[in-house]
Amino acid sequence: MSTATFSSICCNQGYLWKEEGKISKLKNRNEKVRLNVGGASALTTKCMQSSQQNKKEVRIGLLGASGYTGAEIVRLLANHPYFGITLMTADRKAGQSMGSVFPHLITQNLPTMVSVKDADFSNVDAVFCCLPHGTTQEIIKGLPRHLKIVDLSADFRLRDIDEYEEWYGQPHSAPELQKEAVYGLTEILREEVKSARLVANPGCYPTSIQLPLVPLIKAKLIEHRNIIIDSKSGVSGAGRGAKEANLYSEIAEGIYSYGVTRHRHAPEIEQGLSDAAHSKITVSFTPHLMPMTRGMQSTIYVEMSQGVTIEDLYEQLRKYYEDEEFVKLLDKGVVPHTHNVRGSNYCFMNVFPDRIPGRAIIISVIDNLVKGASGQALQNLNIMLGYPENTGLLYQPLFP
Amino acid sequence: MSTATFSSICCNQGYLWKEEGKISKLKNRNEKVRLNVGGASALTTKCMQSSQQNKKEVRIGLLGASGYTGAEIVRLLANHPYFGITLMTADRKAGQSMGSVFPHLITQNLPTMVSVKDADFSNVDAVFCCLPHGTTQEIIKGLPRHLKIVDLSADFRLRDIDEYEEWYGQPHSAPELQKEAVYGLTEILREEVKSARLVANPGCYPTSIQLPLVPLIKAKLIEHRNIIIDSKSGVSGAGRGAKEANLYSEIAEGIYSYGVTRHRHAPEIEQGLSDAAHSKITVSFTPHLMPMTRGMQSTIYVEMSQGVTIEDLYEQLRKYYEDEEFVKLLDKGVVPHTHNVRGSNYCFMNVFPDRIPGRAIIISVIDNLVKGASGQALQNLNIMLGYPENTGLLYQPLFP
Amino acid sequence: MSTATFSSICCNQGYLWKEEGKISKLKNRNEKVRLNVGGASALTTKCMQSSQQNKKEVRIGLLGASGYTGAEIVRLLANHPYFGITLMTADRKAGQSMGSVFPHLITQNLPTMVSVKDADFSNVDAVFCCLPHGTTQEIIKGLPRHLKIVDLSADFRLRDIDEYEEWYGQPHSAPELQKEAVYGLTEILREEVKSARLVANPGCYPTSIQLPLVPLIKAKLIEHRNIIIDSKSGVSGAGRGAKEANLYSEIAEGIYSYGVTRHRHAPEIEQGLSDAAHSKITVSFTPHLMPMTRGMQSTIYVEMSQGVTIEDLYEQLRKYYEDEEFVKLLDKGVVPHTHNVRGSNYCFMNVFPDRIPGRAIIISVIDNLVKGASGQALQNLNIMLGYPENTGLLYQPLFP
Amino acid sequence: MSTATFSSICCNQGYLWKEEGKISKLKNRNEKVRLNVGGASALTTKCMQSSQQNKKEVRIGLLGASGYTGAEIVRLLANHPYFGITLMTADRKAGQSMGSVFPHLITQNLPTMVSVKDADFSNVDAVFCCLPHGTTQEIIKGLPRHLKIVDLSADFRLRDIDEYEEWYGQPHSAPELQKEAVYGLTEILREEVKSARLVANPGCYPTSIQLPLVPLIKAKLIEHRNIIIDSKSGVSGAGRGAKEANLYSEIAEGIYSYGVTRHRHAPEIEQGLSDAAHSKITVSFTPHLMPMTRGMQSTIYVEMSQGVTIEDLYEQLRKYYEDEEFVKLLDKGVVPHTHNVRGSNYCFMNVFPDRIPGRAIIISVIDNLVKGASGQALQNLNIMLGYPENTGLLYQPLFP
Repeated sequence: MSTATFSSICCNQGYLWKEEGKISKLKNRNEKVRLNVGGASALTTKCMQSSQQNKKEVRIGLLGASGYTGAEIVRLLANHPYFGITLMTADRKAGQSMGSVFPHLITQNLPTMVSVKDADFSNVDAVFCCLPHGTTQEIIKGLPRHLKIVDLSADFRLRDIDEYEEWYGQPHSAPELQKEAVYGLTEILREEVKSARLVANPGCYPTSIQLPLVPLIKAKLIEHRNIIIDSKSGVSGAGRGAKEANLYSEIAEGIYSYGVTRHRHAPEIEQGLSDAAHSKITVSFTPHLMPMTRGMQSTIYVEMSQGVTIEDLYEQLRKYYEDEEFVKLLDKGVVPHTHNVRGSNYCFMNVFPDRIPGRAIIISVIDNLVKGASGQALQNLNIMLGYPENTGLLYQPLFP
Repeated sequence: MSTATFSSICCNQGYLWKEEGKISKLKNRNEKVRLNVGGASALTTKCMQSSQQNKKEVRIGLLGASGYTGAEIVRLLANHPYFGITLMTADRKAGQSMGSVFPHLITQNLPTMVSVKDADFSNVDAVFCCLPHGTTQEIIKGLPRHLKIVDLSADFRLRDIDEYEEWYGQPHSAPELQKEAVYGLTEILREEVKSARLVANPGCYPTSIQLPLVPLIKAKLIEHRNIIIDSKSGVSGAGRGAKEANLYSEIAEGIYSYGVTRHRHAPEIEQGLSDAAHSKITVSFTPHLMPMTRGMQSTIYVEMSQGVTIEDLYEQLRKYYEDEEFVKLLDKGVVPHTHNVRGSNYCFMNVFPDRIPGRAIIISVIDNLVKGASGQALQNLNIMLGYPENTGLLYQPLFP
Repeated sequence: MSTATFSSICCNQGYLWKEEGKISKLKNRNEKVRLNVGGASALTTKCMQSSQQNKKEVRIGLLGASGYTGAEIVRLLANHPYFGITLMTADRKAGQSMGSVFPHLITQNLPTMVSVKDADFSNVDAVFCCLPHGTTQEIIKGLPRHLKIVDLSADFRLRDIDEYEEWYGQPHSAPELQKEAVYGLTEILREEVKSARLVANPGCYPTSIQLPLVPLIKAKLIEHRNIIIDSKSGVSGAGRGAKEANLYSEIAEGIYSYGVTRHRHAPEIEQGLSDAAHSKITVSFTPHLMPMTRGMQSTIYVEMSQGVTIEDLYEQLRKYYEDEEFVKLLDKGVVPHTHNVRGSNYCFMNVFPDRIPGRAIIISVIDNLVKGASGQALQNLNIMLGYPENTGLLYQPLFP
Repeated sequence: MSTATFSSICCNQGYLWKEEGKISKLKNRNEKVRLNVGGASALTTKCMQSSQQNKKEVRIGLLGASGYTGAEIVRLLANHPYFGITLMTADRKAGQSMGSVFPHLITQNLPTMVSVKDADFSNVDAVFCCLPHGTTQEIIKGLPRHLKIVDLSADFRLRDIDEYEEWYGQPHSAPELQKEAVYGLTEILREEVKSARLVANPGCYPTSIQLPLVPLIKAKLIEHRNIIIDSKSGVSGAGRGAKEANLYSEIAEGIYSYGVTRHRHAPEIEQGLSDAAHSKITVSFTPHLMPMTRGMQSTIYVEMSQGVTIEDLYEQLRKYYEDEEFVKLLDKGVVPHTHNVRGSNYCFMNVFPDRIPGRAIIISVIDNLVKGASGQALQNLNIMLGYPENTGLLYQPLFP
């Protein structure tokens, strides 16, 4: 038995996840791992079969597999020791193999894609839902209750369903599920995620913005007024839909702002910041489209509270994130680049003095498809199912 | 004589420059053209020879021809009816042809590059100086007084030579010339440029920022405090010097801020805004490097003065620039893209409401190598020599 | 009168076109210019009005204005002294301004786009037809006979209408017009273009391939067998249609071959080479899609005829193109880059020895939207209407 | 003991490497794994320590860590269960941390870089040598004999030291080591690699070319004459050295051939093909530089032997590679894209008919930094040390 236990740790440690210096924090989850993994014979049997991905211990359904976030889930799970994909849906690609839609995944042994209405969830334990905004509420409403669900759409992110209707132009069709949904900003709401059945995975912009701002607001280090957020995103955030505006010739070698004044991520950002502040915060938020596929930077201009210094901001972020695997405050003065995190689940951040006295500049970078979407989704499901949250997520950034 | 006059107008109008609706404004300059151009026989003789560029009526010296701004001057002058290049210097490329350094220019008939110390200015009427910051003061000090000079470096942009020393780390070596230098932000300081002998051509960031802000500050429509400028630039602004940081593999598909808090363009921006305000303005200015060669966008976040509306800002910019050839306020709600101006001398701008009441977002775009450098330089020299300022500058943007 | 003549030359020479060293070749066309342009008073009147583009002496209709080649025609004509656009059609954008579809052209004074069925051709002298393949035959069949037409589609390029049907999957619907159509590879078929009413403008790949190969085949310097053509194209050649495959995220940072064995340009290339050879030539032709918007390179691998040397190939190309404005053989050993010609109507080429004895490597580069489409179309219309063929085409390449 | 055995398989299988369907082939290597890994207690102890990378069982020295291939080794080893980096050298960056040179690797626990002359190899078992061509021979000559070495430079690739001198312009300084060196084209020379002490890791172009051609030549399916290879590479192959030619502004949005006729990879390619043919083969090889960071495609034009069909070529490649983890022949008609393999160790290939009867077109793609450099190097070291060769290499491609 103890051998089995060690073996299971062996399986996890060292290359797919690690726990440097925070054994105590993760202790509960580790014990959970041992329980889930079972005895030696079960383990070895399971592991020996694991080259067939669909024999892994947690059976994953992937809804909306034919988009970029779906493909990214597949990439990440390719090296996950416990999660195997047993169901894939893609309405317009039903009957096709993943390899025909995403040829870079042909080496993976994956189920044929089916239409979501034909999906059999009886052999599925958990679901990543990568469907478009607006269609997701109905589909999730129809899923069996035994499923753990991480929803990557915006459909369950806004607690206030009136706000949802205002920004998305249609009434919320699953208000009772909305009450149940937990907002999955992992490092901020980890405890809530642990016991959640349905997690609303945060948007990419809100992730890059809330991670640095929430700790500063909680500690009352910055003013609530005049928070100016200038965000820059790669194009993959717009998905794989064929749109003239996203053609190579339209995007390459040029930039522009979009959704000025009225981007749909604004209420999500304000919800999170207001929660931290215990009072309503309205932000200035302007996203920009960059000629790059992956990557996101938020440059955030804030007023420090009376008497607060840059040093105070830095120290608060340092303490808040020092034990985190995926959120890294850089050394003083070091500027985060989106290249630093491409293809990985990391968020790098730093804080700088402004020329205007009393103001600070905060910069954070993520990969919009990983920490801004599929990576954080996997991090959340790891937690929901009691696995170490970094399992299968320790990909280092691809650079150059 | 009248035929000659008409002919000269013919030469100018319709394709190389045009004057739609502002004949009266340009009348003086047009008359100057006629005077310069001379009588019929001179004109026709001159024009017939003009396929040899160095026989055009104004003989141009191009110092520092081997950099990007030098090459851009050559590109623009290729179709200029009056300016012909008769001298090119490039110390490290002395003895080489321009075509060997910039093969895209092999069809141009250009003088061999010489070292600046070997340059003969006796057959030169005007000079574009494209040399690096710091070396320019000494060289311009040594030039004959009969030359009109447009300097594209930063060496004469800051009126306060102490400020120059503070930001550039060396004492100003030509303080008497500094007094003579006129800051060449054409649309704002056109009258001063007209009579200048030495024009300090503005930096790219300052151009993109001052063009929208100066009219708003002059009209007291925005507060002087908390002007937040988030600028994004293509890489060509860094020049052709071989630096690891500017390698393709380092830049492509990624973004980052640089010079946070301390970019050298900050004092130049503040000088221009403070002049407009008649009081010291300190701005927040953060430049970002974009994975694109040309193009620049400044996204500027401002507080409107008490009682002022977005409509007021729009109207002020509309009136200020309605007769301008190269500065265009877009229709309400239309977002400028850097693609809209690539390869051209245009600045497109617009103003938008912010989510935070009382604030506004101003966006301007230019091509950093044209309106942000060589194009504005040519616009200035046209003015200094009495030609219509759009002469040789009506290239339409290259898109896609 | 002689003054008028000189003035007209003045208008043309020096910046919009030039004639370096080939007065004799162009003599006829120059005389034609004089005749068209008329006397001094006519000229000056005309020129003074030319700031209103639609008052220029030749009234141009642009069919299919909302695509990239249409926009490129507008860009080129912006500085053309004689051609003004008076009619623009775009079925799906009927009623819209060009500036709303291509904001980089908002400074141009252009007619509102109409549906082609609503077009009034009574005030049009010549037409650029930028419509999709397959629809063009019917539309051109319906045009008034007084119009000069340059068709940029593939619909009239193949003389053999059976071949057209084989490659385009539908019968040719205007076989009588096909007989009339002249293939507009300007430097090769200039005399035929002169008297043409309908010119089939060559495809981009065929232009880049035939320009170097035709003179070599004509001079019997290369074998007809085993001509291997590896071509690389920017994405803009695929047009502005919204296709998943052409999204930024699908194209950036990756390459691939397409149309392997069966690209539609193959019969067009073989038609031109076979004509030059007076016998049927079958080539190996493989196009590749590049992560760039504009630019095309053909790398061509050939066997030299018995006893022929690289020197012979070089000399033949040198002689063939020495008087050409737009086709440039580079100095020996200099490799053409697509950057050398971006945004311009030039074709740069060179020839190199192969490691395999008896073989040669030929490289040619063009901008697929200029020399490969709209630029060559304008070159052809200039010729068809008796203007110097470089009129309005002397844009220098945009680099960097 | 049997538990330990199973555990060790467990550790290996399922996510870091897998052995689908070729247990028999790998049997020897698996047994070696068991021997190396040791009993249950050793294993679990080892694994529990493995979060500290430098406690892994094989101690790796990385010479030349500050270049792109060095950084790529670090990225790949981050998830390798057995190899830990204990020594890093970088002469010009001696004393610095890897995170300061490559900030995307700051989360890795790595030794400080030292100068190679100060390196202590007593605690190193194996070395990746990522030094520049020309300097490597002397350094490897000085290394202790107990080290296993994979050299990523070109210094030991050419068996004929006269040929080395001819192409690299200097005499070979370690001819006795050259005799010992094994050329590490893994799938072709796996048996030789197994027992090698010094492996010369193949160049990126030669890898992409030999993998498809060697099996076809061995089976006498293609003619030796007139093999035309048109290769296209991303820029990262040129390394991180600051060169004007590799600046973003020089590379983006343009392409060109380089090293026409005389690229240094030609003799390496010909050596491999000639070995397979048992007679001297001379190829036509023209590399092209692509505006992308990673990725390489070789488009290869060949004549089939008398009576051979495309089907025969396909079948030979299918059989040759059907058991390979990293070389994949695509389904008939499917075109490989470089995107399909970016960031991974895969080589995708396919074969197509040519329009010219009797000819075929072969296309292969790799990531030049992985299968073309660091990935294949790790694959080789795995083999040299008796680990399953896919250990730590099952990263799926990063797309989009």
